[in-house]
Amino acid sequence: MFDLILDNALHKGHRVDVAVQGTRFAALEPAGTLAHAQAKERLDCARRLLRPPFYNTHTHQAMTLLRGIDDDCALMDWLTREIWPREARLTPEAVYAGTRLAILEGLKSGCVAFNDMYFHQPAVLRAAAEMGVRARVGLMYMNQVSDHIENDATLTLRDTLPPTLGLTLAPHALYTTTPDLLRRVAAQADALGLPLHIHAAETAAETAIAKERFGFDTPIAYLDACGILRPGTLLAHCCHATEADLERIAKRGCHVAHCPQSNQKLASGVFPWAKAAAAGVSITIGTDGAASNNALSMIAETKAAALSAKLGAAAPDALRLADLDRAATETAAAALGFPDVGKIQPGAQADFILVNLDTPAFAGGGDPDANFIYAADTAAVDTVACAGRLLLRGGRHPDEPAILAAARAAAHTLLTP
Amino acid sequence: MFDLILDNALHKGHRVDVAVQGTRFAALEPAGTLAHAQAKERLDCARRLLRPPFYNTHTHQAMTLLRGIDDDCALMDWLTREIWPREARLTPEAVYAGTRLAILEGLKSGCVAFNDMYFHQPAVLRAAAEMGVRARVGLMYMNQVSDHIENDATLTLRDTLPPTLGLTLAPHALYTTTPDLLRRVAAQADALGLPLHIHAAETAAETAIAKERFGFDTPIAYLDACGILRPGTLLAHCCHATEADLERIAKRGCHVAHCPQSNQKLASGVFPWAKAAAAGVSITIGTDGAASNNALSMIAETKAAALSAKLGAAAPDALRLADLDRAATETAAAALGFPDVGKIQPGAQADFILVNLDTPAFAGGGDPDANFIYAADTAAVDTVACAGRLLLRGGRHPDEPAILAAARAAAHTLLTP
Repeated sequence: MFDLILDNALHKGHRVDVAVQGTRFAALEPAGTLAHAQAKERLDCARRLLRPPFYNTHTHQAMTLLRGIDDDCALMDWLTREIWPREARLTPEAVYAGTRLAILEGLKSGCVAFNDMYFHQPAVLRAAAEMGVRARVGLMYMNQVSDHIENDATLTLRDTLPPTLGLTLAPHALYTTTPDLLRRVAAQADALGLPLHIHAAETAAETAIAKERFGFDTPIAYLDACGILRPGTLLAHCCHATEADLERIAKRGCHVAHCPQSNQKLASGVFPWAKAAAAGVSITIGTDGAASNNALSMIAETKAAALSAKLGAAAPDALRLADLDRAATETAAAALGFPDVGKIQPGAQADFILVNLDTPAFAGGGDPDANFIYAADTAAVDTVACAGRLLLRGGRHPDEPAILAAARAAAHTLLTP
Repeated sequence: MFDLILDNALHKGHRVDVAVQGTRFAALEPAGTLAHAQAKERLDCARRLLRPPFYNTHTHQAMTLLRGIDDDCALMDWLTREIWPREARLTPEAVYAGTRLAILEGLKSGCVAFNDMYFHQPAVLRAAAEMGVRARVGLMYMNQVSDHIENDATLTLRDTLPPTLGLTLAPHALYTTTPDLLRRVAAQADALGLPLHIHAAETAAETAIAKERFGFDTPIAYLDACGILRPGTLLAHCCHATEADLERIAKRGCHVAHCPQSNQKLASGVFPWAKAAAAGVSITIGTDGAASNNALSMIAETKAAALSAKLGAAAPDALRLADLDRAATETAAAALGFPDVGKIQPGAQADFILVNLDTPAFAGGGDPDANFIYAADTAAVDTVACAGRLLLRGGRHPDEPAILAAARAAAHTLLTP
C-alpha cells in the first residue's frame, strides 16, 4: 500500500507511473506498471507534466509587504527613504504574515524551498514549518543593527528543527559589515558547522568599496580573505565577479544565487553565466525579495536567467535548457544542503510538481519542459508536493484567503504612517 | 438602460462606477453614482482593478504551433533547419488554429489587439473577427516568396473588414527584400493609404548588410531612402538604432515595437529605450512570435521592457511605471491606428480588463498598477473586454478546450515528418 500513486504522467518525454511512500519516491516505472498497485490516494496524470520543483536560493520573503512602494527609484534613495524606516517597524507577526504570502506565491510557481535573509527568523521558520516547505533561514548580521553572532538566541532553535528546515549565518554584505564581524561570523560558521549566505559583487559600487575601503581588487577577493568563501557558502548576485573571482568561487566550493530580474530592475549588472559555467561554478537561481523584483515566480525567474545568459554572452546557444533546468532544480536543492532532494527517482525525497498540459503554452508542438519554462506561468501549475505532502492542488492552497487577508492587514499597519 | 455597469472598481487609485453602451464607455463616475442606474448586466468590481488592456504591436501569431522546437539554437540554424521547412507546409487551416491559440493566450494576459506579420492572412483575419479582438494583419512580402504587391488578392478584403480589423503592408526585412521591392511597397502604401510594418535594426548582422550590400550606415537610413519611414510605419525591434536613427524615426512619425524577450532570447541586442524616449520616438511593446519569446503574455513582456530599459540605461529610474504603462496601452493602441482606443473615458471604445485583487501580487502594500505589471501574471486576469464585448470571464474563454484541441491537432500535423 503506497501513500500516493501518480498514474500516467509525462516525464522527460516518457509516460510514467510514480509511487510515493512517506516522504520519498518509492517507484518510477513505465506507465501502466502500477495500475493495479494499492495506494491511499492516486492522481490521474494523463494531462500532467511531472517535474522536480524549483528551489529559490536567495530571497527576503517578508518583503512581499513592501512590494510596489515607490518603484523605479534609485537604490539608495529607495532604501533610505522607503524601505529601511519601515523595516525598523517590522514585528515578528508582520514577518510571519509576509513570509506566508511569499511561500504561497512560491508554491504557485512550483517552488518548494527558499533561502531567506531577513529579520525575525523564528517567525520565518514557523511559517515554513506550518506550510510544509523547505527553508534555510539566515541569521542576519550587520554592524549597525545586529552583530551578536556569538550569543544569538535564535541559534538555540537549531536542534529543534525538522529535516526540512535549517539555519545559515548571513552577514548582510561587505558594505554593512566590518572585516572583524565577517571574520567572527566565518569562525562561528566553522565552529557550528553552519553554511554562510551573503550578498556579493552585486553592484559596481561594491567593487569600488572593496578597493577603497578594504584595499582589495574585488569583493570576492576581500570576502575570501575574511574567510567567507567556504564550502557551501551561498553568494547572492555576483554580477561583477571577474573570471579570477569565478575560479576562486568554484575552487572554494561556494554556490552562486543568480537573481536576474532584481539585477535588471535595480540596474545592478549582469551575472556572467557562461563564464561562470565554464569556470565550474555551482550556479543556482533566486528571486531576491519582492520589493526589488517584484515577483516571486521561479518560472519567470528561470526564464529571465536564460534570456540574461543568452544576451550576456551574445549567443542564443550560450545556455541550453537542460543546464538551465538543472540549475533551478537539482543544483539549487543541493546548494541548500538538503540530501536526496531535487531529482525524481526512487529513494529521493518526494518533491515534485504537476503542470497542467491543457493550457495554452502546451498546445503547440515542442518540448513540454521548454514550454513550461519559456512560455508558461503560474496559471499552469496544478499540483505541488514537498517531502511527499501535497501542498497545492488545482493551483490552490487551502489557506489562501486567510494568508492574503493576514498579509493585507500586516502591510496596511506597516505602510500607514 | 446601459449595456453593462462596472460597480465600485479600483481605477488609478480611486473607486469608480463605469457604464458601457454599445462599443463605447458611456460614463465614468465616483463609486456609488451609478448604483441605481439600469443595466442589462452589472459586475461587482469591489475586488477588481480596472485598467486599459494591452495592445501587442509585433507578433507572428500562428508561430504558437512552432513553439519549443529546438530552442537555444543560433538564429540562422534555427530558421533554416527548424522553422522555414515547416512554414513552407503551413495551410490556412493551420494558421487559423495557431492564431486562435495566440489570441486566447493574449486575452489571458489582458491583451485585446495584435499587429501580425505572417502567412495566410485571410485565416488570421477570420480568427480575429470570430474571437472579437482587434488586429492589423500584414500582407508579407519577401523577394523569394511573395512580391506580388500590386495585385495581392488579399487586398480585396480591405473594404469588407469591420472597424476592429485592418491591413498593413509588411515587407519582411531589408535582408529578404530588394530595394526595388521596398520602393514598390512604399509606393503602394501611399496609393492605398495603408500603414507599413517591417523588421528593422534587429541584429548587428542587419547593420552589416545595410553597409555592405546597400551602402548605407544603418538599416534605418537605408529603409528611409527606400521610402519605408512614413507616418504610421511600425518598425519592429530597433535594437541597433543609433541616436541619429532615433531622431529620424521620430521625425518621420514612425512607431517602434520593442520586443525585449525575443531580443534577449535570440541575443539580438537591447533597444535603447531611454535614448528613444529622449528623441521623442513613439515606443510600443510587442511579444514577437511564440517561437522566439516563447510566451505571448503582454504582462511579462511589459515587465521585461521595464527591466531592459533600466539595465540598458544603468539607472533604475530610467523608465517610470506611468511611461511604461502608457507605451503598452494608449501609445500602442494609437500606433495600431484604432481611433478612440486605449483610454478609459466616456466616449472612448470600451476596451478594458479587470484584474483580481485577491491574488498574491496585490496582498502587500503599494501601487496596484505597479504590482500588476511587475509582480502578477495571467493568473490575476479575470475579465477582458474589447469594444464593449466581454471576451474573457473568470480568466476563461468559452471556446478554450476547442481552441487548445484544434491547435494541438494542427501542430501535430505540422511537426510530424
